[in-house]
Amino acid sequence: MIVITEAGIPQSILDALREHLEERGVRTHVSRGTDRVVVGCIGDTSQLDAGAVSRWPGVASVVPVRTPYRLASREFRAAPTLVPLGDAAGTTLGEQRIVVAAGPCSVENAAMLLETAHGVREHGAAMLRGGAFKPRTSPWAFQGLGVQGLALLADARAATGLPVVTEVMDPRHVDLVAEHADMLQIGARNMQNYPLLAEVGRVRRPILLKRGLSATITELLLAAEHIMARGNELVVLCERGIRTYETATRNTLDVAAIPVLKRETHLPVIVDPSHAGGRADLVAPLAFAAIAAGADGLIIEVHPRPGEALSDGDQSLTLDAFGALMRSLAGFAEAAGRTLVPANRTTRVA
Amino acid sequence: MIVITEAGIPQSILDALREHLEERGVRTHVSRGTDRVVVGCIGDTSQLDAGAVSRWPGVASVVPVRTPYRLASREFRAAPTLVPLGDAAGTTLGEQRIVVAAGPCSVENAAMLLETAHGVREHGAAMLRGGAFKPRTSPWAFQGLGVQGLALLADARAATGLPVVTEVMDPRHVDLVAEHADMLQIGARNMQNYPLLAEVGRVRRPILLKRGLSATITELLLAAEHIMARGNELVVLCERGIRTYETATRNTLDVAAIPVLKRETHLPVIVDPSHAGGRADLVAPLAFAAIAAGADGLIIEVHPRPGEALSDGDQSLTLDAFGALMRSLAGFAEAAGRTLVPANRTTRVA
Amino acid sequence: MIVITEAGIPQSILDALREHLEERGVRTHVSRGTDRVVVGCIGDTSQLDAGAVSRWPGVASVVPVRTPYRLASREFRAAPTLVPLGDAAGTTLGEQRIVVAAGPCSVENAAMLLETAHGVREHGAAMLRGGAFKPRTSPWAFQGLGVQGLALLADARAATGLPVVTEVMDPRHVDLVAEHADMLQIGARNMQNYPLLAEVGRVRRPILLKRGLSATITELLLAAEHIMARGNELVVLCERGIRTYETATRNTLDVAAIPVLKRETHLPVIVDPSHAGGRADLVAPLAFAAIAAGADGLIIEVHPRPGEALSDGDQSLTLDAFGALMRSLAGFAEAAGRTLVPANRTTRVA
Amino acid sequence: MIVITEAGIPQSILDALREHLEERGVRTHVSRGTDRVVVGCIGDTSQLDAGAVSRWPGVASVVPVRTPYRLASREFRAAPTLVPLGDAAGTTLGEQRIVVAAGPCSVENAAMLLETAHGVREHGAAMLRGGAFKPRTSPWAFQGLGVQGLALLADARAATGLPVVTEVMDPRHVDLVAEHADMLQIGARNMQNYPLLAEVGRVRRPILLKRGLSATITELLLAAEHIMARGNELVVLCERGIRTYETATRNTLDVAAIPVLKRETHLPVIVDPSHAGGRADLVAPLAFAAIAAGADGLIIEVHPRPGEALSDGDQSLTLDAFGALMRSLAGFAEAAGRTLVPANRTTRVA
Repeated sequence: MIVITEAGIPQSILDALREHLEERGVRTHVSRGTDRVVVGCIGDTSQLDAGAVSRWPGVASVVPVRTPYRLASREFRAAPTLVPLGDAAGTTLGEQRIVVAAGPCSVENAAMLLETAHGVREHGAAMLRGGAFKPRTSPWAFQGLGVQGLALLADARAATGLPVVTEVMDPRHVDLVAEHADMLQIGARNMQNYPLLAEVGRVRRPILLKRGLSATITELLLAAEHIMARGNELVVLCERGIRTYETATRNTLDVAAIPVLKRETHLPVIVDPSHAGGRADLVAPLAFAAIAAGADGLIIEVHPRPGEALSDGDQSLTLDAFGALMRSLAGFAEAAGRTLVPANRTTRVA
Repeated sequence: MIVITEAGIPQSILDALREHLEERGVRTHVSRGTDRVVVGCIGDTSQLDAGAVSRWPGVASVVPVRTPYRLASREFRAAPTLVPLGDAAGTTLGEQRIVVAAGPCSVENAAMLLETAHGVREHGAAMLRGGAFKPRTSPWAFQGLGVQGLALLADARAATGLPVVTEVMDPRHVDLVAEHADMLQIGARNMQNYPLLAEVGRVRRPILLKRGLSATITELLLAAEHIMARGNELVVLCERGIRTYETATRNTLDVAAIPVLKRETHLPVIVDPSHAGGRADLVAPLAFAAIAAGADGLIIEVHPRPGEALSDGDQSLTLDAFGALMRSLAGFAEAAGRTLVPANRTTRVA
Repeated sequence: MIVITEAGIPQSILDALREHLEERGVRTHVSRGTDRVVVGCIGDTSQLDAGAVSRWPGVASVVPVRTPYRLASREFRAAPTLVPLGDAAGTTLGEQRIVVAAGPCSVENAAMLLETAHGVREHGAAMLRGGAFKPRTSPWAFQGLGVQGLALLADARAATGLPVVTEVMDPRHVDLVAEHADMLQIGARNMQNYPLLAEVGRVRRPILLKRGLSATITELLLAAEHIMARGNELVVLCERGIRTYETATRNTLDVAAIPVLKRETHLPVIVDPSHAGGRADLVAPLAFAAIAAGADGLIIEVHPRPGEALSDGDQSLTLDAFGALMRSLAGFAEAAGRTLVPANRTTRVA
Repeated sequence: MIVITEAGIPQSILDALREHLEERGVRTHVSRGTDRVVVGCIGDTSQLDAGAVSRWPGVASVVPVRTPYRLASREFRAAPTLVPLGDAAGTTLGEQRIVVAAGPCSVENAAMLLETAHGVREHGAAMLRGGAFKPRTSPWAFQGLGVQGLALLADARAATGLPVVTEVMDPRHVDLVAEHADMLQIGARNMQNYPLLAEVGRVRRPILLKRGLSATITELLLAAEHIMARGNELVVLCERGIRTYETATRNTLDVAAIPVLKRETHLPVIVDPSHAGGRADLVAPLAFAAIAAGADGLIIEVHPRPGEALSDGDQSLTLDAFGALMRSLAGFAEAAGRTLVPANRTTRVA
């Protein structure tokens, strides 16, 4: 249940209203907009009398929640959530500009990371991606550089001005990763790792939450809800392909998830065409499709020499291929009423 | 195995080559291009000696086939197959122009069909779709008007000039449907109905072959191969969503199937965003995504009053919504290097 | 809606009741039990007044149908349907005895078929399976012996006394196959081939209906309903594995479908462990699991020399392996309160 | 690569062999059997010369590993791994006796837990299950009693003698849970939570590893490998249903995974029929099927009053229903060549 109040509700009435609600067994969550205050009721709402609450002074309306998620729902917040990337220009994700994060699957060494970072920046990427802690299906595969990889990412950030997104897998590493990165990624395998979601719910960094391998759209939103319930409402959702019977592609990009999510939630939605298809030749068409379907951004694997990559070489683009993708993407962004370049930037991308 | 000959190979040598091959247990299939002749070897090729064949006079090269399909493969025919729609203007599917077929799920009566046909034509549709024979999961649901529906489609064709595509389910109805329609549709449930595929392989009409509910891309191409092996090489492939665990949508549009198919086959590829999502609000974004990913066309359910439709009302667009979709689609078509209107037509669509 | 009448309802009242119902737009279907008559109302029941009907003389109760299928539902017929196999002993499927059909994937020639038929009979099979018309994913693969295969099956039947089940794919072949076989199989690819279902709904032979590759349990029951609605109520349902992402097995045996189906329908349920797993080493454990879960029978691929089989060699059992399976199966049948041998037969099986 | 040595290989040669191997870039893992020593080579084996190694003194054979997992493979250890439950009687999982763990989904309070523990023990359960830390899809649902729940489980263990299995979700809780429980469960959502797998790889407790919602069998074995690579080789695998499109059941029990796993690995395999079906009426048939297919045990949700359960009430059995299941299960265990009761116990179960 969500209680929406009129603009000028006195604080004393608001306090009394929350006390009234909490005595009936729910927790309350207050969200202040410019012209109204929204009080979300969380937990077992069966003891609440919606009719009685709607007659309180200053209460404009009482809305039952038709979804299992609340904080993530459009009913709770109609306006889109804008997520600042953390760069000097103050770029935000969720606005008109399409945001593209690009970089290697794994941070391998300083030289390749810097080469990639400069390259993707030149082609219009707004953010650098790169894995320091790598979840690997086999314990015998390369597991990432760990802390050293974080330091290299911070160096690349300093050198290029690109904010950095990287994965965190262990709740004990959340503070450490948050010190080095601008955005923390929760990987698909950890979408329902609740202790980890709780930890990233406590930090002051936006979270990139990837959809689990066979998670429903509702489960993705509930995973976001786990983070938001701890206080961190800057969650970016990422569709990255789901597991199906089809073997021609690594996963099946659920492109319909984009418009479904945009309708259900105020959170921004981006797409990972690299993991979705698992093939370099599919990255561009899937990226175009994602933007056409309404995505707010992309996250793309780029490697200077994919044939030498320690992980995910098959699906990584060369810098040249990434440049070509970005040039073609501009037209699709425009058709979608979006733009690929910052408002104040001339058309180096094109 | 595919044998590619030089341009001026004498007929006598070609005949001898085929005899040589067929004596070793395969059937041969000859395809003449402007500057070469391609001889496909079908069946058990284990007794063939590729090296020996490559030394025949006039033989340019011998290509082993790496795919289970042959006639449908890019190796067999590199150039895209162009499928004529059958209209007076000579429109073909598979060229630069994006072709949109639109119309009701079921033909319900003459008035609604004519109203829809005129409406979709006005908004830029190149073809009219409509079901006369309807496959329905329940035997107690409306099964279509049958022969009467075919006559109404022919009437709508005469009134609007739009060529007609409609489904055939029964091998005994193939000739009848071919008399009334310009293109015959094989529905998803019948993708592996081999007697039906064999029958439509014998008619002189293009075939719209929809991907089965959980068919792989390879199986879709093998179903096309069943048709082509009987002599009808005008097959249009249709991605219409596959069955997954996700319940927010009726099916999951496998948008990656489009570029995968375009790489594997010379046959044109269209998308049915209506069945893929199963929701009217998803038709436009899925249509945009399909064109962005490289589809050659779309097939869309439109009904003057979806709330009164006898089938699939939830996923049908109104005529107004279809018009809006077509106007927005033009930008995505342009970004994809395609066009939505015929070359000789002014911009009534915009 | 189903109307259940008292035992002695006069025919005149029954006739009047049906006329009353049909005037309101439904078709009626009458099923006579020993102590009551059940009238099923098929089609749009919205114009019926259940309360009024329940007050007719001789009407015991009026049951709304909660499932999309009616004739196949437990509400329509509570007692299990018993399906006669057509052998001299009058064996029926759906009773205490577990019925095992066994034989080759394809009928290849007279010698191998007779060798297999005698062998499986010796080990306790009650029925011979074998494909004459084979649905094959590729048009270039062996398609079966066709009419000649039917004749060989009839010969094997005459030689061994085993009734025969074989697949029919084409509605134009239904009468022909019905002349040669005791039970007609609808393969997984044709589960929703409605013209074919309609044709087999008209013959006087039991139908073995295999679940489609990704059909839901409800869709399987609705496919049975298509057959039953035409008058043939002797339908045997077959779980044969569904398509999932798992690649260790050809399909995933949905063993839970067995108890779900037994609860939903009065029709007998058998399992095909050969196609479910696609591996000879999995046939026995899957067969044991199927019987443990409540299946009424099994259909198993057996070939004298699987390495030489023209199709499905990987999943075919040798005769020895089939014999071993049957010996072990007896214990599981007993634990399930069933038996593997006819009542009047001594324990040659064990 | 796995090096198998003869029985009496001197320690000095073994040490030299390991040094030789590790100099070429692999880690080695030594496993001592009664009559041989097995040296597993972990990591990049491309620099090893198998032929040269096979000629070392005392080396019996060198086996290339055909699977991505090594420690979990049958090649690495042919004999079944026996997992001690930790009870006074010294029961082990993986032997002839079928082991059944039973108990509530969540520990709710002392009274219900004790009632359940005594009840399931009376009916033949060898182990008590119960959740203290509960992974819940929604952050607003009951999350378990946490530490208090662990204490209640330890109390129930003391009162009944039943060893306890409970889930751990947070790597920081592993030591705490290991103090209270005899076996630690990794839930399906955490099957690829690598920091958690690493932590439980370090404790001296057997691990119950549940298959992820859409994990392949290979991925399940690789998750076990993550635990074993840290030193804990007592891993029990649990098939608990996979996610498919079918909606009649909560998940689809992949019963074929049991024989596939038994062939691939030496680790014991149990089945959770409660989560697989998600319906109380399906627990018994799925349990029977699991044992028929070769499972070593079961884990079943039992609640004294399922209608009052705080979680998973729909799939919990009453104590009476659990007793009935155990009585019927004995026959299936016997047919599988197993037993449901300890060797030294009279037939209270029957």
